Amino acid sequence: MRDGVILPGNVLKVDSFLNHQVDIEAMRFMAQELQRRFEGVKVTKILTIEASGIAIATMLAHYLHVPFVFAKKCLTINSIDDKYVSHAFSFTENRRHSVYVSKPYLSPADHVLVVDDFLAESEATHALIDIVRQAGATLAGIGIAIEKGYQKGGRLLRDEGYHVESIAIIKEMDVKTQTIRFVDQG
Amino acid sequence: MRDGVILPGNVLKVDSFLNHQVDIEAMRFMAQELQRRFEGVKVTKILTIEASGIAIATMLAHYLHVPFVFAKKCLTINSIDDKYVSHAFSFTENRRHSVYVSKPYLSPADHVLVVDDFLAESEATHALIDIVRQAGATLAGIGIAIEKGYQKGGRLLRDEGYHVESIAIIKEMDVKTQTIRFVDQG
Repeated sequence: MRDGVILPGNVLKVDSFLNHQVDIEAMRFMAQELQRRFEGVKVTKILTIEASGIAIATMLAHYLHVPFVFAKKCLTINSIDDKYVSHAFSFTENRRHSVYVSKPYLSPADHVLVVDDFLAESEATHALIDIVRQAGATLAGIGIAIEKGYQKGGRLLRDEGYHVESIAIIKEMDVKTQTIRFVDQG
Repeated sequence: MRDGVILPGNVLKVDSFLNHQVDIEAMRFMAQELQRRFEGVKVTKILTIEASGIAIATMLAHYLHVPFVFAKKCLTINSIDDKYVSHAFSFTENRRHSVYVSKPYLSPADHVLVVDDFLAESEATHALIDIVRQAGATLAGIGIAIEKGYQKGGRLLRDEGYHVESIAIIKEMDVKTQTIRFVDQG
């Protein structure tokens, strides 16, 4: 509420603590909160997407004692493995990404908790879910740092029956007054 | 030694525990080892580069109780701040990247520990050092997960007088026998 900067076009800039500089205390809090919300849910692996999802995935992996995988956005010459490939349109970058995970790192035995920093139109989240499905793994749930409640992603995912937990859900933002209102999650 | 895969052209693939899937126990060990090696050194901020440096930076920030910043490789529409910009050639991707940090996140008061997963030709490390210099900040040291001791980066940095600590320094690798020999750091 204090450090987010609202830009025109409903863009929330959180570079000072989440997307560029990372406030490790905030990250620790968010990871512990996700751990609490998914208590009792079987998780063998965390799946996120590079780059901004990696910090929260690292802290959550630290608390849950499971490995994590970060899906990649472009191919490098080091990638010789077979891959699960999906696609996501990035509204921030205004282009479509290929998103992939090398096959050895997800298996049908895995219970996968998908984690990301933002949920808006759910392009990235749906790409990750698609990869979990391709691997034949079980989707344990979806943990998000900040959900833009006024965009359709969260509703879509919940309507599809997924267990979605967002630390903060933004109800509305005002660029003129730089105010943010959150959904009261009780 | 067990999980690295040696590819032709002296490429070491560590996707199973560092660069794609992340072994959180290994990450914890490496962060604690870097904490030990830089004990007594003043650090106010950790600086790394997206994407593979973020996991180790997160764990180290967790232990050192300081924020970290990950330098970015390409511009997005969310970046309205003034930036420190440098450049690095990626041999893995065979192209030159712009590397940048938004100015608000590094200041002359900062003592910056540069952290990365790999050190080979030191292209990325030198870009980060250049950014620290542009910010007028103090370089506290350079912490690396895996250094390719047979490439010139480590020697260059140490010759320039920087305090470089690498968890593992590879002496040589053999693609045929898939064996790795490490430098004995005592």
